[in-house]
Amino acid sequence: MLTLGSHAGVILEMMRATSSATVEGSDLKASDQPLAGRYRAVRGQSVALAQPLSAEDALLQSMSDASPAKWHLAHTTWFFERFVLAARPGYVPVNAAWDLLFNSYYNSVGPFHARPDRGLLSRPSLAEVMAYRAQVDERMGRRLDADDLDDAAMQVLLLGTHHEQQHQELLLTDIKHAFWCNPLGPAYRSDLAHCVGEGSKVRWLAQPEAIVEIGLPAWPQSPRFAYDNESPRHRVLVPAHALAHRPVSNGDYAAFVDDGGYRDASLWLSDGWSLSQSQNWQRPLYWHDDGTREFTLAGWRERDPHAPVCHLSYYEADAFARWAGARLPTEFEWECAAASAPIGGNLLSGDALHPQAAARSGVDMGQLFGDVWEWTTSSYTAYPGFQPLPGSLGEYNGKFMSGQNILRGGSCVTPPGHVRASYRNFFPPPARWQFSGLRLAKDIP
Amino acid sequence: MLTLGSHAGVILEMMRATSSATVEGSDLKASDQPLAGRYRAVRGQSVALAQPLSAEDALLQSMSDASPAKWHLAHTTWFFERFVLAARPGYVPVNAAWDLLFNSYYNSVGPFHARPDRGLLSRPSLAEVMAYRAQVDERMGRRLDADDLDDAAMQVLLLGTHHEQQHQELLLTDIKHAFWCNPLGPAYRSDLAHCVGEGSKVRWLAQPEAIVEIGLPAWPQSPRFAYDNESPRHRVLVPAHALAHRPVSNGDYAAFVDDGGYRDASLWLSDGWSLSQSQNWQRPLYWHDDGTREFTLAGWRERDPHAPVCHLSYYEADAFARWAGARLPTEFEWECAAASAPIGGNLLSGDALHPQAAARSGVDMGQLFGDVWEWTTSSYTAYPGFQPLPGSLGEYNGKFMSGQNILRGGSCVTPPGHVRASYRNFFPPPARWQFSGLRLAKDIP
Amino acid sequence: MLTLGSHAGVILEMMRATSSATVEGSDLKASDQPLAGRYRAVRGQSVALAQPLSAEDALLQSMSDASPAKWHLAHTTWFFERFVLAARPGYVPVNAAWDLLFNSYYNSVGPFHARPDRGLLSRPSLAEVMAYRAQVDERMGRRLDADDLDDAAMQVLLLGTHHEQQHQELLLTDIKHAFWCNPLGPAYRSDLAHCVGEGSKVRWLAQPEAIVEIGLPAWPQSPRFAYDNESPRHRVLVPAHALAHRPVSNGDYAAFVDDGGYRDASLWLSDGWSLSQSQNWQRPLYWHDDGTREFTLAGWRERDPHAPVCHLSYYEADAFARWAGARLPTEFEWECAAASAPIGGNLLSGDALHPQAAARSGVDMGQLFGDVWEWTTSSYTAYPGFQPLPGSLGEYNGKFMSGQNILRGGSCVTPPGHVRASYRNFFPPPARWQFSGLRLAKDIP
Amino acid sequence: MLTLGSHAGVILEMMRATSSATVEGSDLKASDQPLAGRYRAVRGQSVALAQPLSAEDALLQSMSDASPAKWHLAHTTWFFERFVLAARPGYVPVNAAWDLLFNSYYNSVGPFHARPDRGLLSRPSLAEVMAYRAQVDERMGRRLDADDLDDAAMQVLLLGTHHEQQHQELLLTDIKHAFWCNPLGPAYRSDLAHCVGEGSKVRWLAQPEAIVEIGLPAWPQSPRFAYDNESPRHRVLVPAHALAHRPVSNGDYAAFVDDGGYRDASLWLSDGWSLSQSQNWQRPLYWHDDGTREFTLAGWRERDPHAPVCHLSYYEADAFARWAGARLPTEFEWECAAASAPIGGNLLSGDALHPQAAARSGVDMGQLFGDVWEWTTSSYTAYPGFQPLPGSLGEYNGKFMSGQNILRGGSCVTPPGHVRASYRNFFPPPARWQFSGLRLAKDIP
Repeated sequence: MLTLGSHAGVILEMMRATSSATVEGSDLKASDQPLAGRYRAVRGQSVALAQPLSAEDALLQSMSDASPAKWHLAHTTWFFERFVLAARPGYVPVNAAWDLLFNSYYNSVGPFHARPDRGLLSRPSLAEVMAYRAQVDERMGRRLDADDLDDAAMQVLLLGTHHEQQHQELLLTDIKHAFWCNPLGPAYRSDLAHCVGEGSKVRWLAQPEAIVEIGLPAWPQSPRFAYDNESPRHRVLVPAHALAHRPVSNGDYAAFVDDGGYRDASLWLSDGWSLSQSQNWQRPLYWHDDGTREFTLAGWRERDPHAPVCHLSYYEADAFARWAGARLPTEFEWECAAASAPIGGNLLSGDALHPQAAARSGVDMGQLFGDVWEWTTSSYTAYPGFQPLPGSLGEYNGKFMSGQNILRGGSCVTPPGHVRASYRNFFPPPARWQFSGLRLAKDIP
Repeated sequence: MLTLGSHAGVILEMMRATSSATVEGSDLKASDQPLAGRYRAVRGQSVALAQPLSAEDALLQSMSDASPAKWHLAHTTWFFERFVLAARPGYVPVNAAWDLLFNSYYNSVGPFHARPDRGLLSRPSLAEVMAYRAQVDERMGRRLDADDLDDAAMQVLLLGTHHEQQHQELLLTDIKHAFWCNPLGPAYRSDLAHCVGEGSKVRWLAQPEAIVEIGLPAWPQSPRFAYDNESPRHRVLVPAHALAHRPVSNGDYAAFVDDGGYRDASLWLSDGWSLSQSQNWQRPLYWHDDGTREFTLAGWRERDPHAPVCHLSYYEADAFARWAGARLPTEFEWECAAASAPIGGNLLSGDALHPQAAARSGVDMGQLFGDVWEWTTSSYTAYPGFQPLPGSLGEYNGKFMSGQNILRGGSCVTPPGHVRASYRNFFPPPARWQFSGLRLAKDIP
Repeated sequence: MLTLGSHAGVILEMMRATSSATVEGSDLKASDQPLAGRYRAVRGQSVALAQPLSAEDALLQSMSDASPAKWHLAHTTWFFERFVLAARPGYVPVNAAWDLLFNSYYNSVGPFHARPDRGLLSRPSLAEVMAYRAQVDERMGRRLDADDLDDAAMQVLLLGTHHEQQHQELLLTDIKHAFWCNPLGPAYRSDLAHCVGEGSKVRWLAQPEAIVEIGLPAWPQSPRFAYDNESPRHRVLVPAHALAHRPVSNGDYAAFVDDGGYRDASLWLSDGWSLSQSQNWQRPLYWHDDGTREFTLAGWRERDPHAPVCHLSYYEADAFARWAGARLPTEFEWECAAASAPIGGNLLSGDALHPQAAARSGVDMGQLFGDVWEWTTSSYTAYPGFQPLPGSLGEYNGKFMSGQNILRGGSCVTPPGHVRASYRNFFPPPARWQFSGLRLAKDIP
Repeated sequence: MLTLGSHAGVILEMMRATSSATVEGSDLKASDQPLAGRYRAVRGQSVALAQPLSAEDALLQSMSDASPAKWHLAHTTWFFERFVLAARPGYVPVNAAWDLLFNSYYNSVGPFHARPDRGLLSRPSLAEVMAYRAQVDERMGRRLDADDLDDAAMQVLLLGTHHEQQHQELLLTDIKHAFWCNPLGPAYRSDLAHCVGEGSKVRWLAQPEAIVEIGLPAWPQSPRFAYDNESPRHRVLVPAHALAHRPVSNGDYAAFVDDGGYRDASLWLSDGWSLSQSQNWQRPLYWHDDGTREFTLAGWRERDPHAPVCHLSYYEADAFARWAGARLPTEFEWECAAASAPIGGNLLSGDALHPQAAARSGVDMGQLFGDVWEWTTSSYTAYPGFQPLPGSLGEYNGKFMSGQNILRGGSCVTPPGHVRASYRNFFPPPARWQFSGLRLAKDIP
């Protein structure tokens, strides 16, 4: 372990800083103290998240979709170095040979190391990567302190903090998967609270047909940060429908399992049925076959029947909805419901690192943000008039617009200040290792 | 070969019958002579399409996505036997052991032979399959003549004719692929006319933002036939946009190839780039590397630069559009343009069996129907309020609603009377062996 | 079917001719009537073997290790055309484009069509291939009649007849596999006799340590035909050992299955255990899971407990031997026993096309030839002083000397006149679709 | 790094101890001080070999054939714990959950963790594994000191030291491969001497036909240690032949590469050619494409043309031999030559960790031991009368007797006291990551 003492406290403190900084994230002058603060808070948070991990843990790559924690720590640093610092002519990189290693997928920047081989990089060591982080932070700090970043640089800087927050979530989902692969079932943290909540019967909240504004105006032309794929803000005709007031729970899902949901082809999409058969799916990814436990970032724990079910593929979410006589929502239906909801709930800052039942069951739409990403039937495509960011950063989002479905709302490991009503997460239908669950929707004739 | 004489004449005659029958396809009483006529015409057309094939040709399965011609001939017959004839208690099937072989994917009906192994069925022979067709036709004929089919049966009968028309197109795309795999490059028919047309500069036809009615009311509650996936008819807000007045031509596409389009990652979706690299794509599937010829149902022929380009994957269509500074249309934009267009053009009845340049270049939107299926950015999902057909036939369409993109408009091998403005074809983005091309779209700010 | 009438009679007649011709196979002057007779007999036998097959059957390729019957018929013809007829300058081939299709693996002759794609060649048709056979036979006949073949040509001609005999066996093993893949389980011939024999307790015949002569002198320097891999004749020290007087029977093997042989890792080679687990082997390839039937060239039939077990991989043969407290023999031990045995038994000419229990159980070593190929522990490598044939025909055998084990003795589908005591057949350890069985051996301390 | 200071010195000291202990390895009474010494020396040597590795390095698994260094350290320890300590009833293991993780392939002992997933075990940590080593050593030490091990235990103890020595070599070949996968090309040790030797023209040493004694009498019935696969000692008739007086050098092999050896199918075994084409082999595994450098345990270094070529697959060794007009030797020819040669040369104790040219070129057979393992044409099978060790340890060797070829003589990373004239190493023909080279042989007519 790289650290002693209570990292939980450090994380919480970091998050408070990050969260408040975000609110002000729209003012991008070089003298922008909130942005500098946000940068430092986000950077510190990554370090805090890595604290429970040994150098060995940080090297684990359990499948080609996942990356080692060390790589996340290095790549997010490289992002700032390459796109902010190195944008200035004459910049001498900390280690030019690392471009190849820590470039993720930016073809326009140069070649990159094959993703499935990231787990083979024992060198540079975790200590070297942490030193790399410190060096880049020091260089960035000097530029920030000297007010020596132009508008373009400040924009990339802000983008980089959001980018790093995405990787914070991935760091946690990836290490969870890696630990689950170890027959010893180690815990990422054994000090996590284990809350058990109360359940509630699903209530359906109806919405008449309406033309709604979806997305946000393009950043940075418009001051409020959003990824390019959330723009432009545009009008969509959303049909009459109803949404469940809460996500599907473990208990709901267990009834589907017990009813033979995994053995009834008529409930499944054809691709999903093929995959579930070939991989012998019987239950959600991290449910134990003892019927009561599930794997969490605190190791194996009792499953709370009232907490939102998670680690479902799109196929499982869709099959459950069909079994329940309902369907998944579209991303527009979801955004419609979330547009006026306060952003909050069980996010990373709650330090539960696991979905939880709502503390109290209100009469309104609940748990839109946090707990679990909610699968939608919307495939990930461009909004009308979509323009990718110029230059290399145009590769950030747009080139992934095929074969993926949209998930909305953030999860229990999404950093606060990162998610918003217009935020579009996306994964291929087979993906199960994210904190992905669902909320039911219904047509209203 | 199973036949002597001029099959081309037979095909044309069949098609005339089919096409006219279709117009009346909405009246479904048992005494419905148009439906009986349509049945006979469609059935005869399949036989005519098989005539140029030897028993050996009819057994070819060149990849797991394709099926042998013999299997298409048998499966379409089985569809009528299983869902119309066998719906009556006590029915004795022609050969009960064939249920396993000719069921395609209806889990609710029973187990089915693995799709990739269809090419291993030398038995039953082609002659036996043709006899099977005759037997089922004879039994169907007796029921039709005796006015002995209730409403439900008549509906399935009508559905079955559309189903068989889909397989007629697949029979041709599949045999084209199989012949292309043979180094001798045999022709399906060597008597096909080889037309060379005139080109035209692309004109953009603009459309302001509008709420449009998409799809058709659900059949059979509503009398006009449509697949369940085209329903319900519903309102969609289509943003302002422009569409090209014609599909992209071979000449247009050759410019993309010559400009290094297949070597520039920045033009491609990430999945498309990976696939094109791993499979070493350099040009459309059937283009010869001599730069001038392409493989057709008449064998290797000179490429007409003015004819619509075809046999593109979604990835190639998308990359071309990006290179051209445009984009692919949504399925709603396409349907909007097609709603008022007459259905016609270079369809199967034209007996060209290959896309052709428009005979004359009008000022209006052209070639919406026929020639090539046009890729859209819309993924294949349910319309709001979608209800699959009841029973086994609910497996026809709905269970494929993931991982596929919509194509619109029909091709040069689509039977007339099959396609319509609301028709939704769908294939996965990597698919190249269909007659798939594209039409460009543009945002209008 | 290409023929009417009783093909069985034709086959038997052909075989008689072949067999007697073989005895004289060593005299290779152009006026050599026995060789001309042998050529015609072997060629006719292939045609006879193809008679029960429709053109569709003859196109089947059920796995990449197997080839369509049509391809066997064409390739063996091409062998004579390419290596005998085309050796003369100015020769005009029947169809130059077929070189690519019917070359199997001779890199030195030119490129060849990928083996797994042989089943995609509906053209040339079976009828064209039969015509090709006739044309080449006619050209060969003219050369033979005119005494117009030099020594080298006569040697290749003789080699070609042995080559074709190998493919006769493969034609049968390959069509058996293809028919087994068809859920209808068609029979290659339904007129095959179904003999049930008597069993015998295994007797062990001991052999003291001895230096023995193994193999044959190199042909054609030495007049008696042998493949290059059987030479040179050389001395081997064979240790004291004992061999079972008969092959392992179905009944013997069923006891192994019933005793959990397929579930006990300790009986298996490591590679065999992995393969059997991953492919879920529970019994020999063609045994039905009803416990009593097996698939034969006559379709599904009752298993005779006294007949030699066959269609075993090396791994299964080895595991059985270990379970039985014995081992497999080396190829030298086998040859030692066979050196003085008469060549005969249940070969192709017996027209059983399936292993049979010995008619009567003698006191001597039995069934060395025919019934089943017997796996040995000897891997396929060169004898000391081995020289491959010169030129392209050097590719015939030598380049396969890795990763394969030797089988000895011929099977029930090996043409008479083809096998001999020194004959070395070879297949990789996982191969199961040949008529492969085993005979037990034991060390004598 | 787990240690400071000069590990090289430690290694050398350990090796001296190991080497001398080995000489006395045959006396197995509990009071056997040489065996206790040998145990301690071998155990210490493993620790010394791990010293240059960080915990991250020790977790690397670059392919499924290789294992992490940490796993080698743990598994060799588990071997002693499980087969020596736990043989006594009532033994309480250090950690019972580790049985699953550190059992390699002993089915008879219980289930084992999948080999390709060994790199996912960040826990137990390297520090825990080192502590495990210390605990087991302490327990073993107490048993040794108290003279509390019976004959059987002493035998397994001796076997365990040889087992650990095998893993010492694998630890080095595996880490070499893993470091080579890292684009930074890190060195395992940068302090290795870089010797450049003198070349010599190959001389052929002839051997007439002879009956020779091969192998060693079975241990432990016979006092001298040998693996079960080296027994029984038996007579073999070795034909007349000649062997090259030295292994093939880098310079020799470069001539083959320059002559187009990797592009000429006629030089290759069929399987080798397929593999080399599909994997695009152009040169030995670790040769740089700059033509002059190769990857070593000291990182990238200039290639010495006179040093033995290594990291060849069997296919490459065989192709080279064919190109050179020679062949590979059999294992018997090799053993015949080595029987009277002193065991010595460039072994692990030389601390070069890379093959080297002979210091001086004598007139006799040289470099039989050390430098590179020499491929032979002999496949790995049982000697006549072979008996595996009883119980679980019977799985040590026998079950791998298929699909592998024998290599002889040890390499520059083989511990002294481990290799001998009768020693049979084995790997599948495609394996390239071992220190595998070749020595040419020739038939003598």
